[in-house]
Amino acid sequence: MTEKTIYLDNNATTMVDPKVFEAMKPYFCEYYGNPSSMHRFGGQTAKAVAKAREQVKNFLGASDSKEIIFTASGSEGDNMAIRGIIEANKTKKHIITTKVEHPAVLNVFKYFEKQGYDVTYLGVDSKGNIDLNELKNAITNDTAIVSMMYANNETGVILPVEKAAKLVKQINPKIKFHVDAVQAAGKIPIDVKNTDIDLMTIAGHKIHAPKGIGALYVKTGTLLPAFVIGGHQERGKRAGTENVPYIVGLGEACELAQKSLSYEMSEVKRLRDKLEQGIIKSIYNAKINGETENRVPNTTNIGFQYIEGELILLHLSDLGICASSGSACTSGSLEPSHVLKSMGVPFESLHGSIRFSLSRFTKEEEIDYVLKVLPEVIFKLNKISPYQKELKALEEKHK
Amino acid sequence: MTEKTIYLDNNATTMVDPKVFEAMKPYFCEYYGNPSSMHRFGGQTAKAVAKAREQVKNFLGASDSKEIIFTASGSEGDNMAIRGIIEANKTKKHIITTKVEHPAVLNVFKYFEKQGYDVTYLGVDSKGNIDLNELKNAITNDTAIVSMMYANNETGVILPVEKAAKLVKQINPKIKFHVDAVQAAGKIPIDVKNTDIDLMTIAGHKIHAPKGIGALYVKTGTLLPAFVIGGHQERGKRAGTENVPYIVGLGEACELAQKSLSYEMSEVKRLRDKLEQGIIKSIYNAKINGETENRVPNTTNIGFQYIEGELILLHLSDLGICASSGSACTSGSLEPSHVLKSMGVPFESLHGSIRFSLSRFTKEEEIDYVLKVLPEVIFKLNKISPYQKELKALEEKHK
Repeated sequence: MTEKTIYLDNNATTMVDPKVFEAMKPYFCEYYGNPSSMHRFGGQTAKAVAKAREQVKNFLGASDSKEIIFTASGSEGDNMAIRGIIEANKTKKHIITTKVEHPAVLNVFKYFEKQGYDVTYLGVDSKGNIDLNELKNAITNDTAIVSMMYANNETGVILPVEKAAKLVKQINPKIKFHVDAVQAAGKIPIDVKNTDIDLMTIAGHKIHAPKGIGALYVKTGTLLPAFVIGGHQERGKRAGTENVPYIVGLGEACELAQKSLSYEMSEVKRLRDKLEQGIIKSIYNAKINGETENRVPNTTNIGFQYIEGELILLHLSDLGICASSGSACTSGSLEPSHVLKSMGVPFESLHGSIRFSLSRFTKEEEIDYVLKVLPEVIFKLNKISPYQKELKALEEKHK
Repeated sequence: MTEKTIYLDNNATTMVDPKVFEAMKPYFCEYYGNPSSMHRFGGQTAKAVAKAREQVKNFLGASDSKEIIFTASGSEGDNMAIRGIIEANKTKKHIITTKVEHPAVLNVFKYFEKQGYDVTYLGVDSKGNIDLNELKNAITNDTAIVSMMYANNETGVILPVEKAAKLVKQINPKIKFHVDAVQAAGKIPIDVKNTDIDLMTIAGHKIHAPKGIGALYVKTGTLLPAFVIGGHQERGKRAGTENVPYIVGLGEACELAQKSLSYEMSEVKRLRDKLEQGIIKSIYNAKINGETENRVPNTTNIGFQYIEGELILLHLSDLGICASSGSACTSGSLEPSHVLKSMGVPFESLHGSIRFSLSRFTKEEEIDYVLKVLPEVIFKLNKISPYQKELKALEEKHK
């Protein structure tokens, strides 16, 4: 590994904020009591958990900290919400989601489809936007749940979840509306108060808390069976001794994310735009995938036409630059991104698309470095592409 | 809180071993890549996860590290194993467990009982031992799974899981055998190799790793559906970005537990026996609950007859001593322990039973301190007991 690591893969996972680490630290070897224990040593950690629940509640704009259930991951939150609602509404056999969800949502819907459920997968246009009319027309009396992501992990495109939830409730108030907000949290303002959203999932490791912690918002009055059956923890919905250090860390991370939001939406956005515009200007076969306006401020997804994304990533990795193609959760497969495919991105961009995702720890000189070395990498790969004629045409057009 | 904390509640949860903390530390703010990422920064954490999986494999005596699935808790492991096996064997409607299991097992069985399953709850004798003949007679062609704990969390009594698994397989090899080894791990030798055990659950926070991590051993060839549906992690059985720091911590904790086993079985046992014998000698209304021979070395459960356990705990807590009555996962309820009730512990002991559970960090002077102050606490409480006549009789008998 080169000494320098330029980490532009924050949609895959983030560095734990040193302040988050400091907040968690005493709960490993010093205050390690079980929050359920009767002695005061346990009481201390119970207090720490209660404080963190309050912090998460405030971050999401929930009305009551009882609406917050700590989970072990975004995937668990998605599973708990969707599978729980379906189990609690066993007579209803229709469920709705979009084609561009994270595998933790999409594969749950596919699972129920195999079980005989009727599933509507809402499509997206070439920019990654959904059509609320398509949602409206899909709703039936038999619909149990609609699950929609707040922001797409690959493109950063923001979906109109509040409007969608309102529409759903207007047509059929019994349908539950779940939002996978894993990629939106900390990047755009979130406030479930006064919305029609019933459930919302967040993951710690996308907002500078560790991997292995998350939270599910469950609006008061929403019937949800236990995801892990056993002890009384998390109001009986998720048994298991509370992960006190990480819960404390998630609380702190939420508070810090709230405080950093304006920086994220101005400075991180400025750096992302600088990177994006720099690439588009200097590399003739580069093209932005998806919506550029209605997007989280840290993400850009760029198609380098006629070359292989995996090769770009390997070259960047050698230079100490971390980026990704598609989602880390689907990587390993050579299948092109289901998100870009749903958007109708043509094959010449589909296989050469790279996601750069920044964070509040990204420095301007890191962006400058990428802008300096990336064109060389791309032009080298262009030379070995079998599509020389097509590349030549693009180069001419770019001039 | 007094400055001194004497922590004798290690069956509820343990201190993270400082060596475990040191092993985890670099994975928060330094090596924080997503193991699924293509870049080398992700590759580093993938290697760390692979090493930890090997450590857990060795600790349990598994044949292949592929047999280890990382979970977020012992409760999750129990749920994943039992619910998974039942889901994978949908035609079978009979399941077997014991009356003395942890709520993470017992409540899963109660859940299926409500769903219409035929459940056999094996009883225990006054020492907390099960009768293998009762198990033998319970097995039918319709039995899907037997789940049995390795060591009881409240009494420390060891159940004959290897013999039970062998017996089950002799009668019907298709039945799956799950062992909740959460309270046995690190206290007695565990080796699944050459046994008939198909699944085994452990929890990190009982062996000086943090709360929020565990592992499930799944013997090769055992069909188990995904517990969390989504990405490819944990071979598709548990989606969600790997909790790299805690996985590293669990691996380290398993290795340390293996190394400390002989200390645990000699020195920790010596201190436990010293505590137990000291109490029995000096306090006339004290009586050991359960088996004293076939027991994990760190646990003693003592009934202080005719007084209230909660009051004892509060007085001990004021003196900085942490112990417990029953399991932390059932605390908060005023119901007496289902374990002691199953053993037929009479009412005069049932409500005044206290569990002391030591660890390799317990010091001799801590035991000496408890032996010094505990009699005073008990005698004070004896004075306000409504059972003066009965206590007088016990005192006479003790002389």
